Amino acid sequence: MPEDMSHQLLQAMNRRRPAVHCLTNTVVQALTANMLLAVGAIPSMSTDIAEVADFTAGANTLIVNLGTLDQDRKMAIEAALETARENNIPWILDPVLIDRAPRRLAYAQELINSGPALIRGNKAEISALSPTESPANIARKTGAIVAVTGKTDLIANGTQEVTLTGGHEMMSRVTGIGCAGTALLGACLAVAPESQRLSAVAAGLTLLGKAGKEAARNAAGPGSFAAMILDQIYQISQSSLHERKEL
Amino acid sequence: MPEDMSHQLLQAMNRRRPAVHCLTNTVVQALTANMLLAVGAIPSMSTDIAEVADFTAGANTLIVNLGTLDQDRKMAIEAALETARENNIPWILDPVLIDRAPRRLAYAQELINSGPALIRGNKAEISALSPTESPANIARKTGAIVAVTGKTDLIANGTQEVTLTGGHEMMSRVTGIGCAGTALLGACLAVAPESQRLSAVAAGLTLLGKAGKEAARNAAGPGSFAAMILDQIYQISQSSLHERKEL
Amino acid sequence: MPEDMSHQLLQAMNRRRPAVHCLTNTVVQALTANMLLAVGAIPSMSTDIAEVADFTAGANTLIVNLGTLDQDRKMAIEAALETARENNIPWILDPVLIDRAPRRLAYAQELINSGPALIRGNKAEISALSPTESPANIARKTGAIVAVTGKTDLIANGTQEVTLTGGHEMMSRVTGIGCAGTALLGACLAVAPESQRLSAVAAGLTLLGKAGKEAARNAAGPGSFAAMILDQIYQISQSSLHERKEL
Repeated sequence: MPEDMSHQLLQAMNRRRPAVHCLTNTVVQALTANMLLAVGAIPSMSTDIAEVADFTAGANTLIVNLGTLDQDRKMAIEAALETARENNIPWILDPVLIDRAPRRLAYAQELINSGPALIRGNKAEISALSPTESPANIARKTGAIVAVTGKTDLIANGTQEVTLTGGHEMMSRVTGIGCAGTALLGACLAVAPESQRLSAVAAGLTLLGKAGKEAARNAAGPGSFAAMILDQIYQISQSSLHERKEL
Repeated sequence: MPEDMSHQLLQAMNRRRPAVHCLTNTVVQALTANMLLAVGAIPSMSTDIAEVADFTAGANTLIVNLGTLDQDRKMAIEAALETARENNIPWILDPVLIDRAPRRLAYAQELINSGPALIRGNKAEISALSPTESPANIARKTGAIVAVTGKTDLIANGTQEVTLTGGHEMMSRVTGIGCAGTALLGACLAVAPESQRLSAVAAGLTLLGKAGKEAARNAAGPGSFAAMILDQIYQISQSSLHERKEL
Repeated sequence: MPEDMSHQLLQAMNRRRPAVHCLTNTVVQALTANMLLAVGAIPSMSTDIAEVADFTAGANTLIVNLGTLDQDRKMAIEAALETARENNIPWILDPVLIDRAPRRLAYAQELINSGPALIRGNKAEISALSPTESPANIARKTGAIVAVTGKTDLIANGTQEVTLTGGHEMMSRVTGIGCAGTALLGACLAVAPESQRLSAVAAGLTLLGKAGKEAARNAAGPGSFAAMILDQIYQISQSSLHERKEL
């Protein structure tokens, strides 16, 4: 099922060219933009308080990634979330390394009150949000889909839960594969009907895992892997154009 | 003609190692620096108000790219333009995504009063500057060369116009090829006589298009393409050293 | 000797996964993180004044790189150095382009009073620090190891001096190989006994040079070289796991 959904989403991305505004950390901006471009989505990344409302209003999804967070970026996040709320634009929280910095964790918890459609993190990050609760419980309380990525991926929306295997250890040897993956999920949510968001997230992570596994098969190390995972995503996106089912 | 000019410019870059100071967005900084290094130019990217005058004064060309613009960057742009004016250093405006953000557009229009030697953008960006005027008209009014890049490139200086074909669709699937290309044009202007700037811009875009086309021939997707276009530019630069004509 | 030491350090990195907090310029952040991940180290890059103490306190080494320096970054540097001092965490200064900007040079000289374990720069940068003194003299005065990298690398600690050849010209055609190399040395210092820091720095630079030389053998230009040097570092790191000697 996720694979069929992948094809449909990729076809829709190629047709609609969704705009994804990414408030994301400076380390992963290039990889993130390139992953979005590989599937035909249109990235933008301005964090300026004077511009962020314009860019967010024109976007189909908003990504809020907490890496390299600073005061200006926090103001931009607030302005962008305000615009997203007014325009009913879904937004995704990527709580990067909140397990390493208590003040960043507190900020992430505050942001969750603004109703993200999806929270995507690794096990340590999602655990930090609420150490005693399961992802499904966090999903129930927040109303967000919660995706915990790692060796296996778990996706929960409070009523359903999906577990995915796939991917490759090499994905953790390149900075930003997780963050760029979050932006890819943003492109998925941009073209999926609201009722199918859980499946769309699963389809997006399936695509990423498949691309990662295939790239790792041929890569001589993390340098060539980073190029090859983009190549794979692009190839899968292009080949989806020859599939029959449309969303 | 542009190809001969390319060789001459590339030889001059290898000999003179022009310094190009780039006030450019954080998404494309690495690719931009790498494209400059591939032709033997020396990139610098400081945006700090305390340093930008020093770096600009030591540069042969200044790039002002409006991506990831913020207040600090605006102050840096003003200080750098002041220094460029005092030292008669040509500067290039890359009005990234001004079609998406009205306040950025207004800022771009204000900057043009400081007399850029070149404005380089895609069709949507250049149209946004002045929706009812042709690039040639914008060139006449501003005194700048105007380069509109895309499937075909158009370069106008108010009296002459050059159209180039070449390049490849894959160039739009990697973030920053356009922005890095602007910096490459900065290296071209740094070594070209002022009377030959139109030809120098055409030669630079010809080089970029040729490298892109050749890279796309062998790339499995945008990840490997991004590496291969740099390889191609480097190879063309190196092979120019064995050509006879010198500028 | 440095090669044996390399194996031991790489084994220790794989086992201990040292955290390296990098206050580094936005141009080279991705390459720097990727080089650390290639050897199994854990990078973090926050420069926010509200978070930098948390990240530094959890790190095994701190990198202070002066590229794309600004006021916020200077405040972050001060806060991080304070935390490093309190927690006895070694820190490394990479005085990027201080030969180009007098105010950056003055700032670098001020920072040296905070006692870096290592200063790593190219010849022009280290000369700018103290034009009339040898690296060995600078080491004696500051108490830091001084590493001058280039065609040959010179490493001095005031009593000993090591000269290394190796590497390849292509390393200067990719932005950030030097900066990322500094972070790699941070991972080396994180796992080396304090008494063996000179050898650890030599081992780290030997590893980088070896990887660069091997990558250049197969690269078609700087684009593929950038990927291949990461692949090589990863491969050497992985193959060290099959060596016998442990640190």
